[in-house]
Amino acid sequence: MEEEDLMQKKNIDYTLYLVTDRRWLGKRSLADAVEEAIEGGVTMVQLREKEMSSRAFLETALAVKEVTDRYGIPLVINDRIDIAYACNADGVHLGADDLSIFVAREILGADKIVGASAATLEEALALEAEGADYLGVGAVFPTGTKSDADHVTLEQLARIKSAVHIPVVAIGGIDAEKVDSVMKTGVDGVAVVSAIMARKDVRAAASRLMELLKASLRR
Amino acid sequence: MEEEDLMQKKNIDYTLYLVTDRRWLGKRSLADAVEEAIEGGVTMVQLREKEMSSRAFLETALAVKEVTDRYGIPLVINDRIDIAYACNADGVHLGADDLSIFVAREILGADKIVGASAATLEEALALEAEGADYLGVGAVFPTGTKSDADHVTLEQLARIKSAVHIPVVAIGGIDAEKVDSVMKTGVDGVAVVSAIMARKDVRAAASRLMELLKASLRR
Repeated sequence: MEEEDLMQKKNIDYTLYLVTDRRWLGKRSLADAVEEAIEGGVTMVQLREKEMSSRAFLETALAVKEVTDRYGIPLVINDRIDIAYACNADGVHLGADDLSIFVAREILGADKIVGASAATLEEALALEAEGADYLGVGAVFPTGTKSDADHVTLEQLARIKSAVHIPVVAIGGIDAEKVDSVMKTGVDGVAVVSAIMARKDVRAAASRLMELLKASLRR
Repeated sequence: MEEEDLMQKKNIDYTLYLVTDRRWLGKRSLADAVEEAIEGGVTMVQLREKEMSSRAFLETALAVKEVTDRYGIPLVINDRIDIAYACNADGVHLGADDLSIFVAREILGADKIVGASAATLEEALALEAEGADYLGVGAVFPTGTKSDADHVTLEQLARIKSAVHIPVVAIGGIDAEKVDSVMKTGVDGVAVVSAIMARKDVRAAASRLMELLKASLRR
């Protein structure tokens, strides 16, 4: 089982990486929105919740995991290693203000995905050395979701991608118009929040992004 | 080592249990306020933080633990099992909106303290059966700290204390005037927030409470 998980960890498709945000949900549940996004083509999901009790976060995580498991899509939990453990998520994503990769590895084990956020080449190399399975690098464009994010140019993004040996996902203000220029840096995928979550038709938004990503990857 | 920890777990002094709150800190650090409270007689500390990044919470926990370790006082972390693990705290305290005792035990192991909040006899018995090491029961009096807390009468508190075999700490609006009536229910200690943290002289407030607790225990 562990070997199988380790194998699976190497075969993760980072192409279209959705970070959840419940701001634009309206009356839908988060799990329903995630399902629509997966039907549109999302290949990986990060559940991000900031204003919830631990128990409510876990309940949301379990509801989303029921969907991601059904579609065979990896689910990672933002920040909360204990929630990732409790819902048996595929892993955790650690931002700059979160706990260390070391602690995540101790609690979750070697077979889980531990991703980390980097904004500089130095950070990227350090996080790779600490054992990150992939990096989220950004913000490549100004973003309304995280207004305090550091800016990373596409040149810096390309340099980080060539310097590390783990998958790199670009994040920050990426929409359909910017997909091609981002993918030209050689990154393994794009992480989006509002470009999918803020759209009325989540499925169509994900589908359009996926088409553009496929076109970029063919070049 | 594990046996030693298990032994220590049985010898914990729950008499004067401080729950931290940074609202009244002013210019002091939380670690300094905790040190004053311990000097006054506090026998156990629960670190409670709600509005902080995981990394800042961990840094605070490490600073407080430096103090509690120096005085040989147990430190438990409110809610966050991952933070408790990361700082190697003596344990965790789980409220009704937090993760389960099962998850805490899985992550932290058998030798750590796992406490839980109960507001009814049914909850108390269920949490004891799930493996809680102690119970925080309340709110026994109206409290400004947690305005949504369920009310537990002193009669109910006494009934819970007789029904379970683990230590019971009363919590909720307990101050110097109420210590004696609370201790008469047979509980193992009182947990206080504002009765220590909101006082100008934290050391003196803790010391006064400890005198009253000792007087109650002598009777």
